[in-house]
Order: sequence, then structure tokens, then C-alpha cells
Amino acid sequence: MPPAGPKLRPPRRRPGRPRRPRRLPRSSGADLRGAAVAVDPRFFASAGPQVLADILLAAGGQSTGDPTRSFNGVAPLQAAGPDEVSFLDNRKYLPALAATRAGAVVLAPALAGQVPEGMIAITAAAPYLTFARIAALFHPAPAPVPGVHPSAVIAEDAVIGEGCEIGPCAVIGAGACIGRGCIIGAHAVVGPGVELGEGCRLHPHCSISHAIAGRGVVLHPGARIGQEGFGFAPTPEGGFLTMPQLGRVLLGDFCEIGANSCVDRGSQGDTVIGPGSRLDNLVQVGHNVRTGRGCIIVGQAGIAGSTVLGDYVQLAAQSGIAGHLEIGSGARIGAQAGVMNDVPAKTDVIGSPAWPAREFWRAVAGLRKLGAARQDEGKAG
Amino acid sequence: MPPAGPKLRPPRRRPGRPRRPRRLPRSSGADLRGAAVAVDPRFFASAGPQVLADILLAAGGQSTGDPTRSFNGVAPLQAAGPDEVSFLDNRKYLPALAATRAGAVVLAPALAGQVPEGMIAITAAAPYLTFARIAALFHPAPAPVPGVHPSAVIAEDAVIGEGCEIGPCAVIGAGACIGRGCIIGAHAVVGPGVELGEGCRLHPHCSISHAIAGRGVVLHPGARIGQEGFGFAPTPEGGFLTMPQLGRVLLGDFCEIGANSCVDRGSQGDTVIGPGSRLDNLVQVGHNVRTGRGCIIVGQAGIAGSTVLGDYVQLAAQSGIAGHLEIGSGARIGAQAGVMNDVPAKTDVIGSPAWPAREFWRAVAGLRKLGAARQDEGKAG
Amino acid sequence: MPPAGPKLRPPRRRPGRPRRPRRLPRSSGADLRGAAVAVDPRFFASAGPQVLADILLAAGGQSTGDPTRSFNGVAPLQAAGPDEVSFLDNRKYLPALAATRAGAVVLAPALAGQVPEGMIAITAAAPYLTFARIAALFHPAPAPVPGVHPSAVIAEDAVIGEGCEIGPCAVIGAGACIGRGCIIGAHAVVGPGVELGEGCRLHPHCSISHAIAGRGVVLHPGARIGQEGFGFAPTPEGGFLTMPQLGRVLLGDFCEIGANSCVDRGSQGDTVIGPGSRLDNLVQVGHNVRTGRGCIIVGQAGIAGSTVLGDYVQLAAQSGIAGHLEIGSGARIGAQAGVMNDVPAKTDVIGSPAWPAREFWRAVAGLRKLGAARQDEGKAG
Repeated sequence: MPPAGPKLRPPRRRPGRPRRPRRLPRSSGADLRGAAVAVDPRFFASAGPQVLADILLAAGGQSTGDPTRSFNGVAPLQAAGPDEVSFLDNRKYLPALAATRAGAVVLAPALAGQVPEGMIAITAAAPYLTFARIAALFHPAPAPVPGVHPSAVIAEDAVIGEGCEIGPCAVIGAGACIGRGCIIGAHAVVGPGVELGEGCRLHPHCSISHAIAGRGVVLHPGARIGQEGFGFAPTPEGGFLTMPQLGRVLLGDFCEIGANSCVDRGSQGDTVIGPGSRLDNLVQVGHNVRTGRGCIIVGQAGIAGSTVLGDYVQLAAQSGIAGHLEIGSGARIGAQAGVMNDVPAKTDVIGSPAWPAREFWRAVAGLRKLGAARQDEGKAG
Repeated sequence: MPPAGPKLRPPRRRPGRPRRPRRLPRSSGADLRGAAVAVDPRFFASAGPQVLADILLAAGGQSTGDPTRSFNGVAPLQAAGPDEVSFLDNRKYLPALAATRAGAVVLAPALAGQVPEGMIAITAAAPYLTFARIAALFHPAPAPVPGVHPSAVIAEDAVIGEGCEIGPCAVIGAGACIGRGCIIGAHAVVGPGVELGEGCRLHPHCSISHAIAGRGVVLHPGARIGQEGFGFAPTPEGGFLTMPQLGRVLLGDFCEIGANSCVDRGSQGDTVIGPGSRLDNLVQVGHNVRTGRGCIIVGQAGIAGSTVLGDYVQLAAQSGIAGHLEIGSGARIGAQAGVMNDVPAKTDVIGSPAWPAREFWRAVAGLRKLGAARQDEGKAG
Repeated sequence: MPPAGPKLRPPRRRPGRPRRPRRLPRSSGADLRGAAVAVDPRFFASAGPQVLADILLAAGGQSTGDPTRSFNGVAPLQAAGPDEVSFLDNRKYLPALAATRAGAVVLAPALAGQVPEGMIAITAAAPYLTFARIAALFHPAPAPVPGVHPSAVIAEDAVIGEGCEIGPCAVIGAGACIGRGCIIGAHAVVGPGVELGEGCRLHPHCSISHAIAGRGVVLHPGARIGQEGFGFAPTPEGGFLTMPQLGRVLLGDFCEIGANSCVDRGSQGDTVIGPGSRLDNLVQVGHNVRTGRGCIIVGQAGIAGSTVLGDYVQLAAQSGIAGHLEIGSGARIGAQAGVMNDVPAKTDVIGSPAWPAREFWRAVAGLRKLGAARQDEGKAG
């Protein structure tokens, strides 16, 4: 049986008496060199085996292989065996395709001819998407195990939808409203009045206050939603007075917030993360920021207060955007870029301060010549 | 009645039986486009209505309006109605002033003539500060609800001042001493021996150890105070030996530490955050750093070990300062700057590595010409 | 008696009734100016006094001093008294050596002649390492106090080794296996199936799932290990489908993960942190990253998915490495560098985008001339 979160049973209470080990964990030292690629059944449930017909039905690819052929799981090309499905979405890995022992491989129709004799080709216009569906067929995300752990602290007037799993030490405040089928992980704290739509997953240690979330929202461990924004006025005595932060956070359907990322609530009005947008780990979103639909904010990027992003904007890792700017739909901000002006739609910028990517790369080339020239001078001297 | 933190009552213990929803939360999808600016009573208490005379008494502005005129709250110019107070502190928004339906507006005396007929002008030398006081009059920060949640774990010899609110699952270690009127949020962990002055607020999930905090200190969710600094010596066997980190963290009166920010304790001696200093989210402060009074450290900035900041130093977002440096009082470090040398008082620096702001901007202009020139070359070719 | 974590006793349950203070904490305001360097006995146990012979035995230095001379602790040169041991590892501090009141000082043999009359010299090839051992002799890390706090939530089939200390509200999932002598801090969450080797220390609020850790691994407060990596495929409907993240995290013996840092689990295969590697605070490690032995990743640095580091690689603060790269053993990445290409072994790079450190500094010098020249132009005009 696969693990599916801590068991929802009362804790054993034997203070002061350590358990006797049945076995002692070894050091992992030896394992590191040959880090396995097989799916570890201690951590992931398997819904296999699955036959090819069902795989195609679930994932949408096409194949001329035997529809009754059975598979046990997925693996990358170099590790897959005859019972596993693999995939290829980059010509660079064609040598791995030639050498793989996989039983089936998902790839674009144009590459189907490269599949070795005896291996089943599953062709798809979007092989990575199709493979994601196949992987989810074999290893679906754990469903909620309905129940409230006895150590959870739930306000009397909170509303918990049917089929929710509320983990150990979770705290749900007064008047909060949790939609059906949510998982509230160990130690998650849901503040008073917060609303979560159906099927949200709050991983351990996250906190959410002053917020309304749509359906299928995911907060990864340690995510911080709805805390006070960074706003204050200097006082004549040399101190600062906090400007009351009177807004909320609205999280659109299916958006995800990464581990230890922070989304501050609005000062007046709301901070909004648009539907389907995904924030990676350690991202900072200031008060009153609004993102459109499907934005991607990669690790350690930050957006200062009141900046507005259109749809499908991408921020690469460690980039930053100053406050009160507008970033047009489809714009892409390069890694470590520092954006200090509005960015038009569908524009790529990079650099700190950021400028159009083409000109940036030209200037970098010029700068490198400068570095090299001075090196020559140094040698000549 | 407004929510004021999870109710301090025993948790309901009904393992395995989910609550029946009284209503199911809807998806928030539709809300995102018209994100409201009104203050949501589910999240914020109101101390309104307030009459003009009391507003002026509390906030300090001046007005010739009817002192008995009553208001219900605050709102930005574009959203305020006749019962609400708004403010203007930037000439850029004069058109919004002309169009607003607000009943009163706070602004500088020089702009008082621009206030539309029939609207009350409240003039103040520092309009933003005056407005912050008015907002706090209508929506004061929630006072502690005295009591200890039964799920809190408090060491027998810890000292808890009068009027404290200790939330669910909070942990307070041996010998800790909590001043009067503090709020210790859900899941906050106060280590052994820690002292907190009066009126501190520890939000959910923060941790503090090896530290002494003054009055009115605020730790936002997930802030980490007092953990071991990053210090170790290489060993002949190719490992590292931790240098025992034997110092503390001292947090001055009224300083604030943002969500998921980290302040390491001193290695020998103390890490010090000066009175009134404010750290935004995801800020890193290394061991033995000392900041003066009123420093402002914006999101994702970092200060390496043993660096000393004077008073009122400002670090913009994502900037970094190397270790063992001195940053003079009033210096301002630009966004994403990388400071590798001491910075004199009242000096602005930017760039990575950082240099005086004026020269940096000149060089950027030169570099952009370089990018453009190479573009022309490209075209000419 | 020194504090050693919250006492392992049942919590006192007196809901609604605040404790009466025995004394009220004062404001720390006055303390900040003269922040002490002495070790505060409220926070650190002392194993002193120790005689010189035992010090040399434990730490390995050499001395001609009286082996029966007794010492009470350690302190920096400028603060040490006659009962304390200090150290010097930088000629820059020779004036402090001349002025110190320390009873003994650890330093390199070449500097032994500089030790003032009457002071004991302890010579060592690696003075900082020797001093770390002496400091640890006087102030050893707190040993686990065996026992399980009654508020901890431990799955019935979890295996807890002998001599473990399990703190308040800690959660240990089904099938997890904790080695002997581990400390699991308050609110730490160990997911189902996780294995920890002997002598690991999990500080408060950290979480670990889908992971196998070796011996002596340390997770600092709020560290996040094993959560889902950032991987998804765009769907035809304009959303994103999560690619199931089916790998693990392997933490080598004695590696340490800083406060609020994040290490995502592999997508397929494992994310690996090599033995003895140390991550500072707020570091991001993407899925499938592998580091070698003894890597040092300083605060707020980030490594994108699938990048592989050799042994003893150093990443300075706020640097970033793009995905799918190889960084050779002994390479050093400068502060705020943005690495977009492979880096050969033993190579120093800096800049964003990163290039060889020598050339970078030459170009910076050139750029500064450019800034200065344009300044002259400005003056001439």
C-alpha cells in the first residue's frame, strides 16, 4: 500500500519513552553515486499495470502497437525497461532513443521513423504533455483521505466541504470556508474568513490569511499568502507608522504558489494571481500586484507593489520588477533581469537594468571585446 | 463581528468525520477581473463611523469642514464614495481628484485649491502619514484576545505577561519571558530563554531562538530569527567543522521582520537589528550584522556576515552587501546592486559591482550606445 | 542548567487564563549599543572550565604553556579576558593581539613570536579549525534529550531509533524511519517513508518528504526538502498540466540545509546533495540537481533543474545557475553571477551573464573609465 499522508489516527502518547527501532536506517552515502531513476514505491503509489489501449485513451496519443500490451510505469530513455513507457521531445537525445530498452516511447510524428525495431511508438503533437498524462495515469496525485486529524484545531463556525482531508495540527480560523475535496496538510494555517474552492491542496506549513482562492489552488510547503504588505509612512519622531493593509489576496483557479514563496495582501484593493499562474519557490509578490492568466514566475524572482502583468508573462529565475509598472501579455523577462520600465506585450528583455534582449546581447559581445582588448594591452605592456 | 484570530476554544475532536458544509465556496474566477477595493468585513474590523472632529484629533490634519460630518471608512480616490476619506500625495493623480466621489480628501496645503466644490479638504504637511493614521482609526490592528489556546505548549518556567494571546500549537520554551500584551500566533515557536518586550506580534509559523526583542517587535509569518549562522572550518579529511555560533540576535524596539526572512544569530557577539528598522519578505541577514535605527531592507535583499549599517540606510529589492563592510548612515543601495566595498554616508550606489549611481547611469547610457552602434553595424553589413 | 529545547513534559492546559508574570521583560533598546560578546548562559551551555592539557588534547594545537592552567571559555581578541581563549588568523588583527587581555591565543606558528609576554600561545597549522574545536569543547552542541513530546504525532508504523528527541507538535508519517540519536524539533514534519540516518538534527518548522538522508544531516528552521519540482506542460486549453514529480531527494552524510531553503525532489530520478555540502539560508535547488561532495552554496543562491555540480564547488551569495549545466569540481561562482554555460573545473566566474573573473574585472575597469569619460564630457559641455 502506498503512503498517502500521515494516518488520520490519534497520536500515540508515550512521553519520555522512545520507540525501539525495528531496523536502523543506514547512511545514504553509498546510494548517492548510483541515484536511482526507478519510481520508489515508498513514496509513490502505482496505478499500474495499464494496457496500451487505456494509455492512449487517457493520454491521447496514437499508436499502431498491440492495444493489449501491458506496461508497469514510466522512466527516462536511459533507464526504462521493456515494461515501461518513455518519451523523447528533443532531437539531441536521438542516440538515447537508439539505445533504450523501453517498451514504448512517446514522440512527435516526424520522429516516429527513428524508433528501433520492436519498440512501440506513441506519436503525439505535444509529446511532453502526452507523457505527463501517461505518468499521471500510472502515478496519480494522492486523493484526499477524508477525515479530520484529532490534533487539528478548527473553529466552530468554519465550514469544511465534503471529502476533505485535514492533517495533523492544521489550524482553520473562524468563518473560514473550505471547498469539497481539499487537502489541508500538517501544520497548515488557514486564517479567519478565508475561502478555498474545491480541490485545493495546502501542503505542510503553509499559511493563508485575508484571501479568497478558487478551485484546485496548490500552496506548496511554507508558502505565505495574505500577510501584511510593506507599507509605512515616516513619522516626525524618526520612526515609521504602518499603513494599514486593508486588501486581500485573490488566487485564481488552479494557480500554484511554490515553497516558501510570499504573496502579500493588497494595501487597498487586492493582490491578484490570475488563473493557472504558477509561482516557483522563494518568489516575492508585493501588495496590489496583479498577474493575468497563465503567468510563470520562476524561483527567487520578485515583483514589487502595484505592478500589473498581462497574460502568460514569464519571469525567469532571480529577475525583479520594480513597482507600479505594466508588463504586457506574453512578455518574457530574462534571468536576473531588473525591470525598471513598462514592458510591451510579447517583448523579451534582459539585463539589470533590463533592456531588449537583442541589444543586450550585442552590448555583452562589445563588453567582452573590451575585456579581451584590455587583456591584450596588459600583455603588450 | 470581525474575525480576530482563531477562537481560543478547545478544538472539536471528531476524527474521521468531515463536517457538512453549510455552503460551498464558489470559484473565485469571476471575481478576479473586478477585484474590489472596498474593505472586506470578513477580514477587517471597522471602528467606524467617525466624525470629522475625531478624525482630525486622531490624525492631526486641518480642515474647515463640518466637524460633525460622519465617515465610514477610507478608500482610494477612484473607489471612494461620499462616506469615505481618501488622499492625494502626488500631482500625477490630480485628474482622479477632479473625478472622485470621496467625501473628504487628505492632501498638502498647496493642493487644497484643487479640491472639488462640496468635498472636504483635510490638509496636512505629510498627507500619507495623516492618511495612515485615519486608516488606522477606522481599522485598528486587532488587539490581543487574552488567553492561551489549549493546544499551545508552554514550558512551566516560561513567564507570560498580562494580556497576552497565545495561539493554537504555539510553543514557548523553558525560561522564555513574554512581555505584556503580546500576540503569539498559531504555530509560532519561541525558543528557550528568549525575551520579548511588551506588545510584540509573532505571526503564524515564525520561529525565534537565542534572541532578545524589544517592545512592539513584529515577526511576519515564517520569519526565522536566531538560527545558527553559516560558519565552519575545513578539516584535513575534506569535511567542514561547524564553528559554534555562540552569539544572539537583538531586535530593537518596533523593528519588523518580513515573511520568510532570516536573521542568523551572532557567531561571537550579537546580530543587531536597530530600533524601528523594517525588513521586507525573504531578506537574509548573516551573523554579526548590525543595522542602525530606521533601516529599510526591501524584499530578497541580503547582508553578509559582520557588515555594519548606520542609521536610515535603505537597501532596495534583491540587493546584496558583502561581509565585513561599513555602510554609512543615510546611504541608499539600488535594486539588485552588489556592494563589495564600504559605502560612505548619504551616498547612492547601484550596479553589480556597485558604484556611485550617477556614474553607473552614465555608463549604462554608454553601453546602450554600444548596443545600438553594433546594431547599426549589423544593418550596414 | 542550560536550556536544551522545550521540556518534554505535557503542556499546561489552562485555556483563557494568562499566566502572571514573575518579571516583565524590559525593552532591549539600551542594550543594542553595547551588544555583548560574552556567551549568554541563557542560550548556551558551558562545559568549562577546561585545563590547557585537555584543550590541546581535544583541539590538536601545540603549546608550551602550563598544562594545568584553567580556562572558562572563548572570546574574540578585543573582548577576551585572562580566563578565555581567543584566536588570530589574519595579520590585519595583529594590533588587537598586542592589546588583548586574553589568557591564551590560537595562531599560526609563524605568528607565535607576536604573542605578548605572559600570554599562552597555542600554535596550529589551521588556527580557525583548532579554535572551532576549542569553542565546541567549551560549548558543545546540545545532545538529544531522549523522549517523545506528548503533542507529537507519530504514525504507528514509523520507526524511531534509540535516543531520539521528538519535539512538540512534530509530525512523523507512516513508514518513516528515524536513525538513532536524532533531534526532531518542534513542528518539524517528516513525511511518509522518509529515512533519516543517525544523529540528524531537524530544527523547528522544517519539512522533509520523498527523501533519504544520511548520517548527521542538519535541516535548519523552515528548510523545505522533497516538495514537488517546477515542471508542467502547456495544454491546448491554455492551462498547464503538472508533470508528475516521481523522484526523491538524497541528502549525503553531514550535509546541512539553511533556514527557509528549498530542495525540490527529482522529476524522474533523484535530486542529490553530496556528503558534507552546506547550503546557507534561502537557497533554491531545482529538481534533479546533483551536487558533489563539500559544495558550499551561500545565501539566496539558486540552481535550476538538472544542473550537476562537481566536488567542492562554491556558489557565492545571490548567484544563479541555469538548468542542465555542468559545473566542474572546485569551480567558484561569484556573488550575483548568472551562469548560462558549463563551467570547467577550478575556474572562477562572475558577472551576469557570467564570464571568467579576470576578464570581467578588466571590463568593469573599462566601463568605469567610460562612466568617468562621459562625466568629463558633461563637465566640458
